[in-house]
Amino acid sequence: MAIKNVILPPNEIPKQWYNILADIKMNPPLGPDGKPISPDALAPVFPMNLIEQEVSSERWIDIPEPVLDVLRIWRPAPLTRALNFEKALGTPAKIYIKNEGMSPPGSHKPNTAVPQAYYNKIFGIENMTTETGAGQWGSALSFACAQFGLTCKVFMVRISFDQKPYRKAMMETWGGECIASPGPTTNAGREALAKNPDTPGSLGIAISEAIEAAVADTSGKTRYSLGSVLNHVMLHQTIIGLEAKKQFEMIDEYPDIIIGCAGGGSNFAGLAFPFVYDKINGRDVTIYPVEPRACPTLTRAPFVYDHGDTAKYTPLLPMYSLGHNFVPPPIHAGGLRYHGMAPTVSQLAKEGLIEPRSVTQMDSYAAGLLWARTEGYIPAPETTNALALVVEEANKAKAEGKEKVIVANFSGHGLLDLAAYEKYLSGQMTDVVLPEEDMKKSMEIFKDYPLPEALKST
Amino acid sequence: MAIKNVILPPNEIPKQWYNILADIKMNPPLGPDGKPISPDALAPVFPMNLIEQEVSSERWIDIPEPVLDVLRIWRPAPLTRALNFEKALGTPAKIYIKNEGMSPPGSHKPNTAVPQAYYNKIFGIENMTTETGAGQWGSALSFACAQFGLTCKVFMVRISFDQKPYRKAMMETWGGECIASPGPTTNAGREALAKNPDTPGSLGIAISEAIEAAVADTSGKTRYSLGSVLNHVMLHQTIIGLEAKKQFEMIDEYPDIIIGCAGGGSNFAGLAFPFVYDKINGRDVTIYPVEPRACPTLTRAPFVYDHGDTAKYTPLLPMYSLGHNFVPPPIHAGGLRYHGMAPTVSQLAKEGLIEPRSVTQMDSYAAGLLWARTEGYIPAPETTNALALVVEEANKAKAEGKEKVIVANFSGHGLLDLAAYEKYLSGQMTDVVLPEEDMKKSMEIFKDYPLPEALKST
Repeated sequence: MAIKNVILPPNEIPKQWYNILADIKMNPPLGPDGKPISPDALAPVFPMNLIEQEVSSERWIDIPEPVLDVLRIWRPAPLTRALNFEKALGTPAKIYIKNEGMSPPGSHKPNTAVPQAYYNKIFGIENMTTETGAGQWGSALSFACAQFGLTCKVFMVRISFDQKPYRKAMMETWGGECIASPGPTTNAGREALAKNPDTPGSLGIAISEAIEAAVADTSGKTRYSLGSVLNHVMLHQTIIGLEAKKQFEMIDEYPDIIIGCAGGGSNFAGLAFPFVYDKINGRDVTIYPVEPRACPTLTRAPFVYDHGDTAKYTPLLPMYSLGHNFVPPPIHAGGLRYHGMAPTVSQLAKEGLIEPRSVTQMDSYAAGLLWARTEGYIPAPETTNALALVVEEANKAKAEGKEKVIVANFSGHGLLDLAAYEKYLSGQMTDVVLPEEDMKKSMEIFKDYPLPEALKST
Repeated sequence: MAIKNVILPPNEIPKQWYNILADIKMNPPLGPDGKPISPDALAPVFPMNLIEQEVSSERWIDIPEPVLDVLRIWRPAPLTRALNFEKALGTPAKIYIKNEGMSPPGSHKPNTAVPQAYYNKIFGIENMTTETGAGQWGSALSFACAQFGLTCKVFMVRISFDQKPYRKAMMETWGGECIASPGPTTNAGREALAKNPDTPGSLGIAISEAIEAAVADTSGKTRYSLGSVLNHVMLHQTIIGLEAKKQFEMIDEYPDIIIGCAGGGSNFAGLAFPFVYDKINGRDVTIYPVEPRACPTLTRAPFVYDHGDTAKYTPLLPMYSLGHNFVPPPIHAGGLRYHGMAPTVSQLAKEGLIEPRSVTQMDSYAAGLLWARTEGYIPAPETTNALALVVEEANKAKAEGKEKVIVANFSGHGLLDLAAYEKYLSGQMTDVVLPEEDMKKSMEIFKDYPLPEALKST
């Protein structure tokens, strides 16, 4: 019998997260004055227990038991050998995916939504606000808030809000509230609409709206939650890679190549960081974050200090950025339409520990369709970007005649994104062209954000 | 640590199906002349290897290895303890579900779609036709046909076709073709449209169209596939209950109550039949098939000989039936809108081995919403019917102060049915009233179908 799913026994679920801040040197976030901000400055936005995690340099951080209890609904997640996909490609490579599509919201996002809701709850918070791009994160936080009895308000990027009406229904089924962004309920939303009433929206704008809605509640019972980018989000996601390492041990294998799609960076980090730890400690492993060619942060943007949102409510973060005003073209992978990149992921790219790649939308859907027809599960648009690179690497292994072991993060299923597959199948999808002029223009702001000496030296 | 998911190790997947025909006496299907039909008469519709399974009385039938290889994509499926749901109900009952929503199409249906596609393939068939109600079955067969390189044409009941556009996209993603029923491509479809151009359609009509499309291919390379009702379908689904029994053994429990929703009967049978086997052999266990009050086959229709489809292409089957012309009201649980019931399930009900129940649409959605908010996964509309009865039985256990063990079949997820949840949440859903006059009228045909002596005596 050929192994299909490598199943980690329930009691083998990792009990600690891996914190990469213990192993890399990071530049601090800066305040409006250009000086490192103190953790206290974030207190109106996040609960203090999460802020402490954000700045912690402990290598291993315990996962609270009530968090594990919820994660156990779908974790440990399967590590799956893609035998049929390999056969269709005619590759000698062994292809594995870590299937994060089995969670109730259907993606990796609840891995951090659950602990974030938990930490807010025990800090005494009653309401949470957030933004969502493709809808995966808003769904995940709505699910998590239902588990801990919190309310949840989600600002959803308008293009996704319009393309994916079921996402709103999903959030509401879990008790969440979902509104289109930009919208008239916040200053940030009103400003964005004034500039361009027909804007498809962006994660940057939606983040501004959600932060504004959180700090506007003077009772102190509301906080904001971010589904990617921040250190504590990456931390929570490492359960993916920690499980995968145990699963590879079970079958006495170790991957040569690690692949994850990267928008804000969290699903990539979740699988990759535990392997980056091995690499830092001398292991030979190649690690690829992959992004859409239409929103090329790691592959084409500069390493700068920039805001995480359009209205500049967030601190300045050290990261690769297309500029916080950049509105990416409307590719279907809404979760990868972000102007910046997690500072930890950015730092690893800068140090050469990971090697950014990019793929086109059409290659991604071709890979996604092949996956669905061979392996069954229909991938999320974001996930197809990872699969497109798997195809490239599998073909390379074929050309070289090498039996490489490839593992990719299957970040989620595409059951709420089937309209995009229909568009692809009916020949109505094309590659989305990156507006080079827009990109150059949005990056002009960096002349006002001189790179501090500290950043240049790393 | 409280047990959440009972995980059966991959190598413990059942290697044989349980055939209930070994343990109950059935009345034979009859031809147009009122005499038992020979298996050969079915040869234009089904491949002979499946016809042999349909009439086999072997108790245990081997699952072919290529079928197991595909089932291993998602099987063994989890047996999940619903601790949060129990807590919300305040019941002493222990509630378990067998989660069939983890398959690529999201329901229990591929348990039979995969072997059916396999047996057709090895018989030399190249094309399959079928019908689908809610879309679960058409999706499952499209998925299965992709695995074995067969084409798949699906006639989808029009009301579901209109309500669930993503289902068509899903089938097409797997390479299937999906068309609304009734439609103009078959005699059966044209007749139904002539009678009522605005008909919401029914499974009975769609079955007629799919059979007609199969036998119309004179090359002999096309066969029809039914997703429920028939003996071999029930057989294939028993892997659910066989796994569940092993999982209960692992935790040293045995259920007092078994619950499955019943439309054609296959998901109910899949979980229940292996426990019916125990009951026949003296075990004390209560087994409830549950159906919507708006389509009350087992609970209100007579046990008769009737056709499985509207155009009377199928043999006469011994079953509870509302009459093959009955068009059920448009409840959201499209998979439960069938005029008849599997002959095996009907026979067990007649013998009192199982005890049919019914629930309302509103109670079902209330139970489904509570499930989503406590246990995370959003149930399919059909599944909510089973959960409504779980709630009733859990409340009864509470009233009686008894620690009953209840297991229900979670037949599928509702991610492609979120529009119905939105309707429920916005207060626009009501209980669908069964048109009593229509029901009585459709059952008038039975005066022309006198019950043979053989049937009366059982």
